[in-house]
Amino acid sequence: MIDRGHHPVEPWRLRETRLAMDKLAQSESLFALSNGHIGLRGNLDEGEPFAIPGTYLNSFYEQRPLPYAEAGYGYPESGQTLVDVTNGKLIRLLVDDSPFDIRYGYLTKHERSLDFRTGMLERDVDWTSPGGKRIKVRTRRLVSLTQRAVAAIEYVVEPVDQPARFVIQSELVANETQPKLSDDPRVAAVLDNPLHPVSHDGGEHGTVLIHRTSRSQQLMAAAMAHEVDTSVRYAMDQDVREDWARTTVICQLQPGESLRVVKYLAYGWSSLRSETAIRDQVAAALASARFSGWDGLTKQQVEFLDDFWDGADVEVQGHPELQQAVRFALFHVLQAGARAERRAIPSKGLTGAGYDGHTFWDTEGFVLPVLTYTMPDAAADALRWRHSTLRMARQRAEELGFKGAAFPWRTIRGQECSGYWPAGTAAFHINADIAEAVMRYYRATGDEDFLDEVGLELLVETARLWMSLGHHDREGRWHLPGVTGPDEYSAVADDNVFTNLMAARNLRSAAEIAAKLPARARELGVDAEEEASWRDASAAVYVPYDKDLGVHPQSEGFTGYAVWDFVGYKDKYPLLLHAPYFQLYRTQVVKQADLMLATYWCGDAFTDEEKARNFDYYERLTVRDSSLSACVQAVMAAEVGHLDLAYDYAYEAALIDMRNLHHNTGDGLHMASLGGAWSALVAGFGGLRDQEDTLSFDPALPIGLAGLSFTVRWRGVRLKVEIDPVAVKYSVHDGSNASMTLRHAGEELTVTATQPVVRTLQKRRPLLPRPPQPLGREPRPAMAVNEDG
Amino acid sequence: MIDRGHHPVEPWRLRETRLAMDKLAQSESLFALSNGHIGLRGNLDEGEPFAIPGTYLNSFYEQRPLPYAEAGYGYPESGQTLVDVTNGKLIRLLVDDSPFDIRYGYLTKHERSLDFRTGMLERDVDWTSPGGKRIKVRTRRLVSLTQRAVAAIEYVVEPVDQPARFVIQSELVANETQPKLSDDPRVAAVLDNPLHPVSHDGGEHGTVLIHRTSRSQQLMAAAMAHEVDTSVRYAMDQDVREDWARTTVICQLQPGESLRVVKYLAYGWSSLRSETAIRDQVAAALASARFSGWDGLTKQQVEFLDDFWDGADVEVQGHPELQQAVRFALFHVLQAGARAERRAIPSKGLTGAGYDGHTFWDTEGFVLPVLTYTMPDAAADALRWRHSTLRMARQRAEELGFKGAAFPWRTIRGQECSGYWPAGTAAFHINADIAEAVMRYYRATGDEDFLDEVGLELLVETARLWMSLGHHDREGRWHLPGVTGPDEYSAVADDNVFTNLMAARNLRSAAEIAAKLPARARELGVDAEEEASWRDASAAVYVPYDKDLGVHPQSEGFTGYAVWDFVGYKDKYPLLLHAPYFQLYRTQVVKQADLMLATYWCGDAFTDEEKARNFDYYERLTVRDSSLSACVQAVMAAEVGHLDLAYDYAYEAALIDMRNLHHNTGDGLHMASLGGAWSALVAGFGGLRDQEDTLSFDPALPIGLAGLSFTVRWRGVRLKVEIDPVAVKYSVHDGSNASMTLRHAGEELTVTATQPVVRTLQKRRPLLPRPPQPLGREPRPAMAVNEDG
Repeated sequence: MIDRGHHPVEPWRLRETRLAMDKLAQSESLFALSNGHIGLRGNLDEGEPFAIPGTYLNSFYEQRPLPYAEAGYGYPESGQTLVDVTNGKLIRLLVDDSPFDIRYGYLTKHERSLDFRTGMLERDVDWTSPGGKRIKVRTRRLVSLTQRAVAAIEYVVEPVDQPARFVIQSELVANETQPKLSDDPRVAAVLDNPLHPVSHDGGEHGTVLIHRTSRSQQLMAAAMAHEVDTSVRYAMDQDVREDWARTTVICQLQPGESLRVVKYLAYGWSSLRSETAIRDQVAAALASARFSGWDGLTKQQVEFLDDFWDGADVEVQGHPELQQAVRFALFHVLQAGARAERRAIPSKGLTGAGYDGHTFWDTEGFVLPVLTYTMPDAAADALRWRHSTLRMARQRAEELGFKGAAFPWRTIRGQECSGYWPAGTAAFHINADIAEAVMRYYRATGDEDFLDEVGLELLVETARLWMSLGHHDREGRWHLPGVTGPDEYSAVADDNVFTNLMAARNLRSAAEIAAKLPARARELGVDAEEEASWRDASAAVYVPYDKDLGVHPQSEGFTGYAVWDFVGYKDKYPLLLHAPYFQLYRTQVVKQADLMLATYWCGDAFTDEEKARNFDYYERLTVRDSSLSACVQAVMAAEVGHLDLAYDYAYEAALIDMRNLHHNTGDGLHMASLGGAWSALVAGFGGLRDQEDTLSFDPALPIGLAGLSFTVRWRGVRLKVEIDPVAVKYSVHDGSNASMTLRHAGEELTVTATQPVVRTLQKRRPLLPRPPQPLGREPRPAMAVNEDG
Repeated sequence: MIDRGHHPVEPWRLRETRLAMDKLAQSESLFALSNGHIGLRGNLDEGEPFAIPGTYLNSFYEQRPLPYAEAGYGYPESGQTLVDVTNGKLIRLLVDDSPFDIRYGYLTKHERSLDFRTGMLERDVDWTSPGGKRIKVRTRRLVSLTQRAVAAIEYVVEPVDQPARFVIQSELVANETQPKLSDDPRVAAVLDNPLHPVSHDGGEHGTVLIHRTSRSQQLMAAAMAHEVDTSVRYAMDQDVREDWARTTVICQLQPGESLRVVKYLAYGWSSLRSETAIRDQVAAALASARFSGWDGLTKQQVEFLDDFWDGADVEVQGHPELQQAVRFALFHVLQAGARAERRAIPSKGLTGAGYDGHTFWDTEGFVLPVLTYTMPDAAADALRWRHSTLRMARQRAEELGFKGAAFPWRTIRGQECSGYWPAGTAAFHINADIAEAVMRYYRATGDEDFLDEVGLELLVETARLWMSLGHHDREGRWHLPGVTGPDEYSAVADDNVFTNLMAARNLRSAAEIAAKLPARARELGVDAEEEASWRDASAAVYVPYDKDLGVHPQSEGFTGYAVWDFVGYKDKYPLLLHAPYFQLYRTQVVKQADLMLATYWCGDAFTDEEKARNFDYYERLTVRDSSLSACVQAVMAAEVGHLDLAYDYAYEAALIDMRNLHHNTGDGLHMASLGGAWSALVAGFGGLRDQEDTLSFDPALPIGLAGLSFTVRWRGVRLKVEIDPVAVKYSVHDGSNASMTLRHAGEELTVTATQPVVRTLQKRRPLLPRPPQPLGREPRPAMAVNEDG
């Protein structure tokens, strides 16, 4: 057991052994609970102290004007911001006359723990009031993965050595006071009092508050009910107003006696349904939660998670901290996606309102790859959400003068909310990322109904967009000028290699699936000429190459730019807070994997030598000011043979939030990096590649890792891959007829339920020495940390 | 005499024969009076009806926050907006009980006339009140060119056929009601009540109002005094409050009798001096104006203008409307620059608050070339203003991470106020434009004191900026990636030919003048190494060229882009209001001359054939959505032999405001286009080129122009150039020793006061046929209009 500060390293939970007041925001994010529909930040039960209070409902947002110093055609005028809705987590406690507040009195123990197998946040407090009364408080909190509208809290309090009077005030509070946030543009806009009271009600079955946002006109309801469990006499009362509801429980306890209150919470919202419909909906959810009871809810939670881990767990031997981190990562990705159900999966899940609660390409690019292989239905639902926004994406394309659909760079509901077009609208690659996510899901599941229902239309409409964005030059090569690729320290550049290759894939996929589903394609207006134009443009795609250096420029001309002044800016990260875009864009400096991502996702477009040279070149330029980078660098480092470097990057991707490496974990967790941690291990050391119909592996472990096992779901079977330093074993379960054909290091082989296959690992020899990173941006060594143990 | 609607074509004035209510804003701009320090829009004396009220003091501005939907490092947080200051133009009139308001009663005559030789706006009204009293009102208004702080109005009223009671209320009004302006981003931000009262005072010598802006903390005073002249008994009274002052004159007049009031106005402002100092300053100005009297002021005005026209007039034979237009243009350029005296010359002069009253590269690029040859002291003062902002420009460069000075893209006081960096900060060419204006002024005047005082420092600091912006590639070529050139339908492109060539000129000029003034250069920290680095980079400058097409791409890669959909957007101009920047930037469409401007200002970098090919290529892509384009196209059309096309463009440049061709003359006149009208004639048909030490000419007239004469000031002499269809005569005056060496069509020749030189014109044969323009963007023919006559 390694103690990393106050977070002990344990395989199946994240535990905090003391309350660090300076890390409150971070811990609120780390301990956030969610099912993808409801999100509760890990605020203390008693509400204070807090860094950022947060209760979120997926896609419940308010509009805000987007101001411009100089307006321009096509700039979105209205933004969307995730709303901190009615707080139902709040349970205040009075001990005799002292409010329970850990900033006063004396705290003997304060431990919190998030258990990845029970899905519960537990808290264990031993506190002595300023008046000298020592008490113990134990709480457990869950957001149900099986009952989408429900959360619940078990609150137990007892006196330790003296009798005391206890008053529990369990509340619903709307329009909580928000902290003054920083000027960092990445931090969410704060909305004052976004919720307008519609109605409130209290009765024997609980209390409910109904509110509406003023501009987006969304209606929400929050309801609570309580069960009290104690051997002593107690009084109970409730009170409800427009913006708050309070249930009070009072009793006198002797040492040895305790008071237990279970609080059931139900949430609902709609932009269409009526107030009464919403009120009934939360009443039903609340009734259902009470019917299950606390024990029923916790049992369902464990069952749900058992099933998840059975098909998703990643075991890491030789690095306990990485083991813990990857399970933490998977748990939060699960929480973000599990019950999102045709709503967006935001870049921070529902763990905070960072980036205004928006969804970016992160979802299709980094989160869906994990969900596709661990919880494919959730991946399909996320893509169904995209499909549900097609009308808006078509409107946007038309507004911009293009055909097909232009999906928004950032949004909650589907409208473009990006206020800076060079790093928003111009980043059209998101459309190809969505198309690729459709194809990945289809290849992994074989789900043709999905293609028919939403997949083909997404492919066709994005292909049409690309055709109106691209053009042929005098030599017949197909170009995409003036677009922004993944690297946000470049923008509006010509022929970004990643974008060009992904657009070409998008076009090929659309042609391929249209040919497979000709009737549906006809319905969508696709004819043979259009399919041919897709194949032709795709085949003619231009990919710039710098012959002198033997590398691919990220975009045309990139390798001719001056190299960024890495020395002068060595202590000024993230660079975007210290240098103008003007200078970042025109020099060789890379915020996040861009060309490297092209070599990962479009690996067949590069030779092994090109990959090695490109990796070596870009590694020296990439500063990882984005959380989307380390995981990709891990995968490509492993592929080109720098297994130790891959190890470091995998470690960084997995630890990004537990260590607050980007200094903004407080605003919410980085779902893409957490998803990327899985990719770093599975695609990096497992060598999983999924760009073709057959799944490929090519495992290799870094020195220090004794073993790596993971399970992926593939067309109805679960494939387990167990890697040790010399060999890999592939086995399938899910029925005695289960069978799967895969490729190992280029060799096609078939695994059946009765016949696992074992293969010796290929030796991985790097073509070039391990490259250096920009000064001060070396990843922290995975091994040195491990050696602490 | 040709009547163009209600503006008769007359050689020396702009006359309006009836009041067009739908063109009020335009006429307020056309009839604006200014001396570069005070600006009065041509609002009616009685204040209403108005489109945009306007009284401006050069550089008197208020700050306003610049909002961003997504902020970024180095974005300016505060903007500057020209303030509509205390209105002193206002003279209301009551006839018996009816207010004189041309919207009521019956208007027999309403004529206004701006006389370019007297510098006065005259108005002549014959009106019958709703009550049936017919009166005549004649007013004359001037902003003194000789007394910088003074304006004056002569107001004469008389009854025509019945006696009437007249009440004149002459006022000062602060914080006038502003109209609701459009959403067009180019229109100024409206500030509500920008003026906070400081003090007010009235006495026998007049009344004064003193106000202060709240954020910029600028102090201003407006004062007025009156002289009354009538044969009848009259009463006079005055009243003064915080935001207004009123002088009332009452009398009863019989037909044949008249009332004449002369109103003297004085304005002053300061950000440094005290209230009492400002108060005394305007009192002194007022006393001085009264001492001169109305007759003295008008006499001084005529003398000033006689001197100006003697050294500046352009005579056009064969096109009376163009004759009128070029004098109108010169008159307004004079008004903008005459007494600016180390303040900025805004892009709309002081004729309106369009573009927030900001100064752009328009000044150095299009206005100073005219002033340099017609009123060189004003050009020097404009550059001294730039120099006075060096501290801010150095700060800006440092903030952006560069050396030297980075002058703002748009500003009033010197701080960058651009809220959209791709078309602001990135347009670094403004620094080279300033350097070139320094050199142009120096070459035209030989003023070495100016170089020593401000010129060299401007050259050195801009050269230092370029050195930190540029870099050498592997082949040793010097590049400027990621900058924005003149064409605002492209941005953040690599190696913009115009910018690269102008930067190289800037570096060469800095090295040349540093070598000429070594002591001053040493003071500025310039050593031999630095000078050498300037020469080296300049010599190594990279200029992209498209061999296949035989033309220069405007920026690297430009000629490979898809051509804009000119047909689809044929009725959607200006394009920026109908298409996203994204699409404009990545296609071949040109808002305004860019590569063509390079072939004009850096002509020695191109062969004649390259110029012809480039002109032919870009002419088909240039939509002239900017007012800075037609004049440049006129010059280059003439150079490559399309004299008829040059004629059309010259006509467009000259008529831009008189015809409201850009639909925003109401916000103020386009000084650059008005300056450009002079260039179109003088540099276009006169062939004036001034990039070398010797001034060059190469005249050629289009069919239809019978003659063109102009005078330029050159190192203390006035050179008159008289062109007819077959020959040109060069003569100098200013003393019997006057002499000047110039180049005619490549031949060096010397003209003396006693020996004019006559030369036959070179035949101009175009290499290529006259090219077409984008559909619907053909310039209107200069000749067809002329043939009306």
